[in-house]
Order: sequence, then structure tokens, then C-alpha cells
Amino acid sequence: MRIVVTNCNTTQSMTEEIVRGARAAAGPGTTVLGLTPTWGPESAEGWLDSYLSAAAVLDTLRTYQEQEDHDPYDAVVMAGFGEHGREGVRELVDVPVVDITEAAAHLACLLGRRYGVVTTLERSAGQIEDSLYTAGVARNCAVVVGTGLGVLDLGDQERTEAAFVAAAERARDAGAEVLVLGCAGMTGLQRAVGEKLGMPVVDGVGAAVKLAESLVSLGLTTSRAGGYAKPLPKRRTWARPGAPPSE
Amino acid sequence: MRIVVTNCNTTQSMTEEIVRGARAAAGPGTTVLGLTPTWGPESAEGWLDSYLSAAAVLDTLRTYQEQEDHDPYDAVVMAGFGEHGREGVRELVDVPVVDITEAAAHLACLLGRRYGVVTTLERSAGQIEDSLYTAGVARNCAVVVGTGLGVLDLGDQERTEAAFVAAAERARDAGAEVLVLGCAGMTGLQRAVGEKLGMPVVDGVGAAVKLAESLVSLGLTTSRAGGYAKPLPKRRTWARPGAPPSE
Amino acid sequence: MRIVVTNCNTTQSMTEEIVRGARAAAGPGTTVLGLTPTWGPESAEGWLDSYLSAAAVLDTLRTYQEQEDHDPYDAVVMAGFGEHGREGVRELVDVPVVDITEAAAHLACLLGRRYGVVTTLERSAGQIEDSLYTAGVARNCAVVVGTGLGVLDLGDQERTEAAFVAAAERARDAGAEVLVLGCAGMTGLQRAVGEKLGMPVVDGVGAAVKLAESLVSLGLTTSRAGGYAKPLPKRRTWARPGAPPSE
Amino acid sequence: MRIVVTNCNTTQSMTEEIVRGARAAAGPGTTVLGLTPTWGPESAEGWLDSYLSAAAVLDTLRTYQEQEDHDPYDAVVMAGFGEHGREGVRELVDVPVVDITEAAAHLACLLGRRYGVVTTLERSAGQIEDSLYTAGVARNCAVVVGTGLGVLDLGDQERTEAAFVAAAERARDAGAEVLVLGCAGMTGLQRAVGEKLGMPVVDGVGAAVKLAESLVSLGLTTSRAGGYAKPLPKRRTWARPGAPPSE
Amino acid sequence: MRIVVTNCNTTQSMTEEIVRGARAAAGPGTTVLGLTPTWGPESAEGWLDSYLSAAAVLDTLRTYQEQEDHDPYDAVVMAGFGEHGREGVRELVDVPVVDITEAAAHLACLLGRRYGVVTTLERSAGQIEDSLYTAGVARNCAVVVGTGLGVLDLGDQERTEAAFVAAAERARDAGAEVLVLGCAGMTGLQRAVGEKLGMPVVDGVGAAVKLAESLVSLGLTTSRAGGYAKPLPKRRTWARPGAPPSE
Amino acid sequence: MRIVVTNCNTTQSMTEEIVRGARAAAGPGTTVLGLTPTWGPESAEGWLDSYLSAAAVLDTLRTYQEQEDHDPYDAVVMAGFGEHGREGVRELVDVPVVDITEAAAHLACLLGRRYGVVTTLERSAGQIEDSLYTAGVARNCAVVVGTGLGVLDLGDQERTEAAFVAAAERARDAGAEVLVLGCAGMTGLQRAVGEKLGMPVVDGVGAAVKLAESLVSLGLTTSRAGGYAKPLPKRRTWARPGAPPSE
Repeated sequence: MRIVVTNCNTTQSMTEEIVRGARAAAGPGTTVLGLTPTWGPESAEGWLDSYLSAAAVLDTLRTYQEQEDHDPYDAVVMAGFGEHGREGVRELVDVPVVDITEAAAHLACLLGRRYGVVTTLERSAGQIEDSLYTAGVARNCAVVVGTGLGVLDLGDQERTEAAFVAAAERARDAGAEVLVLGCAGMTGLQRAVGEKLGMPVVDGVGAAVKLAESLVSLGLTTSRAGGYAKPLPKRRTWARPGAPPSE
Repeated sequence: MRIVVTNCNTTQSMTEEIVRGARAAAGPGTTVLGLTPTWGPESAEGWLDSYLSAAAVLDTLRTYQEQEDHDPYDAVVMAGFGEHGREGVRELVDVPVVDITEAAAHLACLLGRRYGVVTTLERSAGQIEDSLYTAGVARNCAVVVGTGLGVLDLGDQERTEAAFVAAAERARDAGAEVLVLGCAGMTGLQRAVGEKLGMPVVDGVGAAVKLAESLVSLGLTTSRAGGYAKPLPKRRTWARPGAPPSE
Repeated sequence: MRIVVTNCNTTQSMTEEIVRGARAAAGPGTTVLGLTPTWGPESAEGWLDSYLSAAAVLDTLRTYQEQEDHDPYDAVVMAGFGEHGREGVRELVDVPVVDITEAAAHLACLLGRRYGVVTTLERSAGQIEDSLYTAGVARNCAVVVGTGLGVLDLGDQERTEAAFVAAAERARDAGAEVLVLGCAGMTGLQRAVGEKLGMPVVDGVGAAVKLAESLVSLGLTTSRAGGYAKPLPKRRTWARPGAPPSE
Repeated sequence: MRIVVTNCNTTQSMTEEIVRGARAAAGPGTTVLGLTPTWGPESAEGWLDSYLSAAAVLDTLRTYQEQEDHDPYDAVVMAGFGEHGREGVRELVDVPVVDITEAAAHLACLLGRRYGVVTTLERSAGQIEDSLYTAGVARNCAVVVGTGLGVLDLGDQERTEAAFVAAAERARDAGAEVLVLGCAGMTGLQRAVGEKLGMPVVDGVGAAVKLAESLVSLGLTTSRAGGYAKPLPKRRTWARPGAPPSE
Repeated sequence: MRIVVTNCNTTQSMTEEIVRGARAAAGPGTTVLGLTPTWGPESAEGWLDSYLSAAAVLDTLRTYQEQEDHDPYDAVVMAGFGEHGREGVRELVDVPVVDITEAAAHLACLLGRRYGVVTTLERSAGQIEDSLYTAGVARNCAVVVGTGLGVLDLGDQERTEAAFVAAAERARDAGAEVLVLGCAGMTGLQRAVGEKLGMPVVDGVGAAVKLAESLVSLGLTTSRAGGYAKPLPKRRTWARPGAPPSE
Repeated sequence: MRIVVTNCNTTQSMTEEIVRGARAAAGPGTTVLGLTPTWGPESAEGWLDSYLSAAAVLDTLRTYQEQEDHDPYDAVVMAGFGEHGREGVRELVDVPVVDITEAAAHLACLLGRRYGVVTTLERSAGQIEDSLYTAGVARNCAVVVGTGLGVLDLGDQERTEAAFVAAAERARDAGAEVLVLGCAGMTGLQRAVGEKLGMPVVDGVGAAVKLAESLVSLGLTTSRAGGYAKPLPKRRTWARPGAPPSE
């Protein structure tokens, strides 16, 4: 099967890292295609970024599936932790859609009574909480904590690991028995940190790939019988005409 | 004071109607400026539309406030019932931001023990429920019901009124003691329907204007001390480069 | 328009301070009339005081509106933070009723993701939590904290301010991005403290005046279609006959 | 032991009926004393009545315990279903306090997964819901339904029984497996109706007497370590000076 | 009346201690019979123990009531704090069933606004939280804290008391105004600790006995009209045939 | 990998049917081993059955893993919809454990805004609701409805399908956009019914197999850092000594 993974920002190197993580998780018969939005924020950190990202990701998928020669795909994985857009993509495409936020939470619920999310900046905590709530998996979330590192600061492995471990200890004190990596760019941390802390650490990208494969293999896709019906046909303009494209 | 009211779609006539409603509610010293996004959906009905609308509204406000000669303004009213973007606008601008969804609910809570929302299509109910929840005012919402009419079908006054009354009766049976008009384009219905039903009917546009005036007059604006801190400086691209701008 | 503001206790000087706060918030065309109960507690601090106060405030309004020559009024503001009686007044009068507890919370919800209430004694926290819950605005309340000062101890500005700031820091640590002054007698603190803390501070008296004006100006009043129907006609005795009136 | 049972209204015949019910439930060593407020509503049906009743009941107990020659008592049962005042009485007296609303719900939770409350007028449902919520026992309440009969209409046994059975069937359809009699004056119905419906029917007066006896016999009383600390000493006026005492 | 008290484990000395506690609480006309399961865990500490215990307790009661010459009984008290099985016993027997977990919580709700549970090992907290939730009394539970002592370590009175007091202080800091002894084997602690802490301390065994007596005396028993209908007749095997009976 | 699937009852033919369903869902490299308890109920329908089943399933797994020559396994799937024992098995084994109740709900959350469960007898609804709640996935469950058919009545395909469709329509009216088959023995219905209703239908057995494979493939297993620590070493007796093994 073929899974399209959408980055939530315009940073190509992050798409590549996400695709690496997705491929590492994917089963033998699964192909992964990464899509990078051609517009939107270079990283999503806050509500404005998140809403901008949501429209850009929708546009990216819409444009992709309108290409005459595009390869068919079986599922979409949305790789923006806590970012918006999930329900819109469910309306747009006919295949199952799994967002890494909800995916990590779903698996975390199976591994312990309470899980904690460790994310980048504290300011993202609210978005993540709302995203977990609307996905229906907030009840067993003990806490969302920030490391104080921005998305693009995650390069320094050592500092990131130290910040992550410190934040994870706060999550454990708040009752978490399982940790969730609250950023697509944290994928590499999973094993190292898990060993240090003696707790399972769930990465959303891997989790979402497995859930997408599961749905596809069971022949399940998004219900059209309610809120995720197809978008109504109407005039939509997807970009500001004649305006300078970037800030 | 000066209030900017943003339509959530590209339909200029709806902006005009919304501005009329806003002006009718505004106090003597208040000026209302309506902004219509130059891109986005012609009407917002569903999640995809809503996320597209959120980015377009953010872009519209961003562009407006970057114009060298723009008039200063004291508050923003977001006139898309159940649409996304609210928190992003709170990050973007330095003045108070009031969304018509939350505004109507806040006032409705003061008028009865439970309120009901009557909206256009049933498919919008989920978005509205989530929006009320994250705004912190869902607890006293008895139900969200649809009239089955699309946003652009609201022109036929008589049919709209009949559909609204039928839906409102379902809301009352579910425990609503107050009604909320769940669409910016319903503003005209308020008085006629209220009399027929013997229940107060709250229109979000008027409610939001009064709340915006209240905040301005009390010298209150959005807290920067948490999730609504200013957007971080970074590269953001607000439009798809080199692509045909509309569908 | 004319707004009646009811103090929840018998201390005339507090009524005067509340009226000053209300007038400062009121729009140009608004007149404020303060009513002081002739019976009840001299300050409301705890459940017994609160229930005694509720009956006395109801009696005060009932007596006022039964006076043949009373001036008409357009709204009632109830100025007892966390005190009971709100729903009873909604039954009693035909104009909109706004309680300062709910009013502050409604506006606070518009200014940040979570708000915290700073009140006088810790023992009042439970009442305030219940009042916010039944008003439908508890969801975004991060915490209610006490300063340890009684209502009648608020006179010493410096000590009050210091106690308030200390309590507000606890609220911020609990996630509050906005503060609510949890006592009518704290009205003066708002600006000084807000600057020190870099957070918006909402005073219930001002908030309630603006919400009352908003409802009146939109032509909205309490629904009679449910729990706030008019009191049934029956024999009610409003005071202990022939007993010594005070403790 | 000696239990004081307070009626919530001024109707002496209702006190007598309540006392009969209390005595029927009381253990062999328990004496029951009924107190009727000398002021307040003749029946409590709605919020205004409820707040008036709360102050009158507090005053009644306060006056009683200030009588030099009053008999000591071991517990207070408050016999107003859904009426206010419970927490104030907990502050006032040094013995355990049990309200019939919470008492019925506590026992009902032990008898089935969900219980339903059948009360007099629909307008009381909101008060009862709030009372159950703040007592901490709302979670297993399936529904509160009204019979449409006023408190003082309960005299006609046959009509009352028919109305009760009809309402109880609605409660059962909403998931109730146990019924709660939502009015002190319904005490007589319990056995007849229970047999007709094949469901346990809990009467609050009997339930409260047994819970009060339980607490006394276990040596337990209200905690003073938090919200139910003793009322602070201060000036309180319990009656409107110089005013005609009744309406 | 006659109450059967079931220990949740196979330790006869704990049954004896529980029976002593039950008898101390029981009214003059009440006889207490303790039953010790002949299989199951020697102490219940964790989920596996709890599920094993549930089946063993059910089997113990089933076997007892199938004995031709068994004495009749009027109620069952289940003396395993936080242990499973409650609803199964409600199906099995025709008399009221009270579990000590819920019983303590019900009484605690009457004594303060929030209660805290002090249990043995931290690992039991989750079970207790779930048990309170499904019993419908979790809302007013401030916290469940562990002393770090195992069930069979409670013998050393002094150490137990010190550990309990330390844990209770954590509960108080979390808002508890009332304490619940979270283990049947803690019954002795109640008075000593209560005095040290100035807070009421509720023991589940005593609470359950009083609630069972209350239900019996009011003629109330489990509803058969829903989830607690009688077990369906079918083939059930209650023990592993031909296998070594113990580990 | 090798997955052990435990039936919750002693009916060998149901184990076989479950294993067939599990194999149909399993990936190419996955082997499925079905275990049938040698004791317990022949079908689990109600609380007593469920607790008996929980102990029997624990014993079955314990016995299996104590066999010297048992094949190693990588995950456990528990195939009793709404039955107890999940957390105990998590303590017992070192591999991931997935219960079909939670599994179906996790996948259903990815497919629509609300899901509904269609189960056998109405009396099981409460257990299922509690199981979803404690698993952390109840929030998006619109309703649990019964077909009125017992577990062992599911043989008649046509009647079962008709009853299922009728119940599913009730679920849809309650807001469900996705259906969950609420019984392991319903596995065959999935495709036929899904087509008739135009809604995705999730079978717990398939869902649990995919989730178990996902966890194994991601190297994740149950956290030992909290409530699911290994059972403490102690004396446990797993069978009633000297008693006739079956009813």
C-alpha cells in the first residue's frame, strides 16, 4: 500500500526526517511518499502557524490529487503534532486519514493508565490539549509539558535529549506512565530516552503509519454519514491573487 | 472606537449584511469596518471550508494591518459561526478579538439555564460544538440543531423562518430556554422568530460587537502571558507560488 | 438606561465603592443606582452568609420594585462575588440580571485560554467554583485562590495589593493567563496589579455593568420559557415576625 | 439520639407529614423533632422560593439552638428536595447535616446503575440537578422529570400516583433503574408506586434519617478543616427592620 | 438483621479484623457473619489480584447460599477497598450489596466538600479511582494517595500511623477536607489519626455496615430492572478442574 | 510474530470463530493461537459472568505461560467485548495486551466524529460503557445499544443481521457515524451490514489484532512504571479446593 505523509511546514529537511521515521515504521509492503507544502510556515509553533498550516496542507493534498498523473494512495498521515486540519482532510480524501497527535495517544492508551505529552514550546500545550480532546483521547492524558525548545532547535541531539528527559520527569510526576513525543521532529529520540526513563515512548509518526496500515488492511475508511461528508461543490479560492507570496 | 468585522467567506454581499447587523448593534461612538477575504470559500460549510477560511481571514487581517495607511482599530469581531481561526487572530493583533460563536453563547448563558444553537446544515454541528467547548461555554448548551438550509440558501426569508422555527422547537424539546442564531447570515431573523417562540434569540454578530465594545471600554485585551503570545518571527508563505489562484 | 446594582451585604460604604466602580465602567447614557440590603450579613464570607445575603438581596429588590414611586430600571447587577441568589433574581424581575461572578468569567474567557480567580478567604473558593460551574463558565477556570484577607480587611491598599500579587502568582503557576478579582471590594486593584503582573485583570463589577448594558441594548432579557419563569403566586413571609432583628 | 428535621416551608401540615415519614424510618432509639420556619414561602417551587427558604431554615435552626432550654440534638435532616441552604447549615451546627436530596441519591446509587428523580414541577429540575452535582452524586442520575403537580397539589393520592407513574416511565426510558421521590411531600407514594413499577423507590426523608443515624453512630460530623468552617463572628441582621413581615 | 461480610482475600486473620470492625459499627439488632474465600490471593494489591478476588468472592457467596442449611442474611458488605466484583454480587444475591469503597465515599461526601483516600500501595490508586467513578461518587474525591505500605504490612501500628498521617497531609494539600481509609485492614487507625489531623476519617467497613442496615431497614434492595438483573441460567465452571489449586 | 487470542468463555466453537476472524485480519508474518478457558461461563452476559471470565482468562494465560514447552508469543488479544480482566493481563504478561473493546473504539475514533456500539443484550451496555471509559475512549461514543440477542443466539445469520441493522439505526439516530460490533461472535456481520448502512463497521477482533501487531512492530509494550507493575509475589490460590468444579 502507499501512504502519503504530509509535513505541516515548508521545511523540506523536516519532511525528509519524517519520511525516514515513517519508513522505519512501515510494513514491508508499504511505500511512503512525503509531501511538503509549498506555502505556509517554515515551522508550526502556535495558533496562527497552525491555521496557516492547515490550509496549506489541504491545498497540498488537493493539488496533488488533482494532478493527472499522480500515483494513487491508500491513506494519509498528517505529521504535525497538535496542528489543525485533520477533519478537513477527512472531508477531502476518500482514504483513511490519521494525524500523529491522535495516533500517538491511541497507542499510548494501550500501554498505561495515563500518558504524558512532551512537546517543544509551552505555548503549544493548549493546541495539543484541544486536539486530543476533539479526537476523543484526552481522558487518559495526565499532562502536556514543554521542553522550551523550538521546532527548529531540535537539531542539537544532546540538548534536546536533556530537555526532553527533564520534561518527561515532570510528566511522570503528574501521573504519566507512558510518554508521547509531541513533535514530528523528535522521532529520533524515542529509543534513547525510553531507556533512560524506563517508560514506553510513543512517536506519533510511527504510530500513525501503523494505524493507517491497520485501517487500510481492514478495509476501513472515513465515514461519509455525518460531519465528514464530502466538501460541497462551490467556488473556493486557495491563494491570495496577485499578492507577494511570502513575508 | 473602531471595530473591524471579518467575514469568513469571499461573498461581499454577506459582508455587507454582517456589517449592517454590526452597525445596528454598535453604540453611538463605534465605527464598523467590514473586511472580506480575497481568497477562501464563498461560504463556509464544513471543516475544509473552515480551515481554508481561517487562513484567509488571518491573511486578510495581516495584510490590512500591514498597509501603511490603514486606519487604527480597537477590536476585531470574527463573523463566521463555528469557523476556525479565533486563537490565531488573538496571537496576530494587539486588540481584543471576539468570535460570534462564543459571543452568542456568553450572552445566552446570562438569559437562561440552557441554550440551543440553530444553524444551517447538520454537518456544521460538530464544528460548533467543538468551538463552544474550546471557548469554555459548552456546558450550558443543550443542543446544536440544523435547519437543513445552506448558508447561501438563507435568502428566502419565509422558508428560512419556517425552517428556523421547526429547528428551534427541537432545541426547546432538548431543554433550550434561549436560542442562538448559528450563522452570521441569519441576523435578520432574530426579532420575528423570537416573538413566535416566546424565547430570547441571540444573534452572534450583535453579541460580539457589544462584547468587543465592552472589552475596549474596560481597557482589556488578550493576554500575552500564555498560549496567545505574539507569533514567533519566522518565514511564512501566505500563498501558493505560481499556482492558479482559484478552483 | 438605568442599572440597579445590589450590594450583597449591609455595609453602606461597600455599596458606595461598588457604585463608584460601576459608574466608572458605565457608558455615557447609563445611570447607576446602588441598593444596600437593610438586613443580612455585614460582609458575605461563607455559605451561611451567602444564603442569608441571597434572601436579603431578593427582599431588597422586591421591596424596591413594590414602591409606588420607584424609578424604572433596565437591568440588575448583583455585586456579590460567588454569592447566591442569581437565579432567584432572574425569576423576580423582568429585566436582565448579571452577577459579577459570571460576568468576570465571561469576559476573562475572551482574553486567554484559562483564567484564575483571586478571592479573599480560601473558604470562599468552593462557593465560587460552584457559582462558575452553574453559570456555565467553569471549564476555562484554572484555579480559585485566596489571599487570606477578609472582605472588611481590604482597606489597607498596600497589604491587599501584596496579598493579591502573591495569590495571582499561584494562579499563574496553575495555568491562568487572565486574572479575575474575586470580590466586589477589590475593584480598585485592577490597574495597579495588572501592570505588575503583565496579565489582564478583570473586575466583576465593571464586567457586569458592560454585559448588562449589552443585553439591554440588544433588547434581550431572561427567558421565561423554563427554569426562570415568574415566581408562582403564593404566601411568602419575608422576615421573622416579632423577633429581635439582629444578632 | 435526637434528629431535628427542618421543613423548608411554612406549612405546618407538611412538617407533620415529614415527621411521620422520618419517624417511620428512624431506629428504635431515635427521637425526631420537626421544625417549621416561621417565615419563608408556604411551599418551595423555584429559585426565589428556594433562596428565601434557605435563609428562613438557617434562621429557624439558629433561633432554636440559641434558646436556653432547647433540647440537644445529634443531627439535622433538611427536608426540602432540591432546596438551598445545606452548606450553610453545615457551617452553623456542630452535628452532621443531611439533606434529603443528596440522601436519596446516595442510597439510589447503591441500588442500580442509574437513578431517576421524579419531582413536582418541571421548573424545579434545574435546582435539583445543581444540588445533586454539588453534592457529588449527579454522575449516576439519568434524568430529573416533573409530574406537573405543584407541592400543594399532592393531596389527591390517586392523581398524584398516576402522574408519578407516568413520569417514572419517562425516567425508566431515560435509563433509570431506581427512582427517587423528588419532594418531601411524596413520602406516602413509595410502596404503592414501587410495586407498580417493579423498581426500588427511594424517599429522601427516610434516606436522610438513616444516613444521619449512621453518621452519628459512627461518631462522624462535618469537617471544619475547609469550606464548612464555623461562620465568622460578625454583625448579621436576620429580619427586615420595620417592614411588614409578609406579602 | 444479619449481614454477611466478605473478605476479598484468603487471610483468615484479616476477616476477623474486618468482622470486629463491622460488629463495632453494627446496630444492636445486627449479626455479622464473616466469609473468607477458600481461594484467591492472600491479599489484593493490584489488578490481577483484584480480578482473582472478584471471582473467588462470588464463588464464596454462591457456595454459601447453595448450602442447604445456611442461615438467611439480609445484606452483603464487600470488604475489599477498590476491589472488583461489586456489580456481580448485585446480580447474584437478592439482598442489598454495599462495597466498602463506595460506602466510605458516600458518607465522606456528607462531611465535607472534598474527600481524599489514603490507601496502601500507590499502584492501587487507579483501581480505587475507577471504582469511585463507576459507583458515581468520584466527583468530590480530591485525590487518592498511597502510604507505600502493603496490605500485610499494616500490623506495625506505629509505622502505619506515621505513614498514614504523612499521606493524609498530602491529601489535605490537594483539597481534601475529609479522609477515607483506603484499606479494610486500616480500620483501627480511624480515631487516633482523626484526632491528630483534625479531620473526620471514614472507615469503609463501618460505613458499609451502616449503609447496609439503612437499606434493609428501609426495605430497599438492588433493582432488577436493568444491568443488575439475575444472572442468566447457563453452564458455568467455577474452578479449574484437575489443576494444582495453588501457586 | 505470534499473537495469543483469549476467548472469554469456555465455548470452543466461539474460540474457533474468533481465531478465524483474527487470522483474516493478521498480517502475513503473524501466527494466531486461540486459548479457551477450561473454566468460567459458557458465554459472558452480565457482570457475574464477566468477573468469573476475568479470573478464568488470567488463569488460562498464567497456566499457558508456565508450561515448560509453550511457544513464545508477542502479544495478547483479549476477545471478550466489554468483559473485565484487561488490566490484570497487563500486569501478568510482558507483552502488549489489547482488548477488543478498546481496540474497536480506538479505530472507530479515526473514522468519524462519533461511534456507536451495537451489542447483544441491553444488560451488557453498562459494562461496555465502563470499559470504554476506563480505556480512555468513551468521549466519542454516542451510544451503546443492544440487539436483544444473547451471545449464543447469534448463529441464525438472518435474524442476527436484521436485529443488528435495527439497533444500528438507533445508534445512527443518536449521532453515531461509525459502528462497532459489540461482541466477538459478530465478526461475520461486518461487511454485509456495513454495505446496508453506508457506514464503516469496526470489528473488535480485527482491530485488536492490527493494534497488537502495531505495538509489537514498534517495539512498544505495557509500562511497568505505574499501575501495571508486575504482580507482587505472594500466595494465590486459583481454584476452589475439593469442590465440584462446575454448576
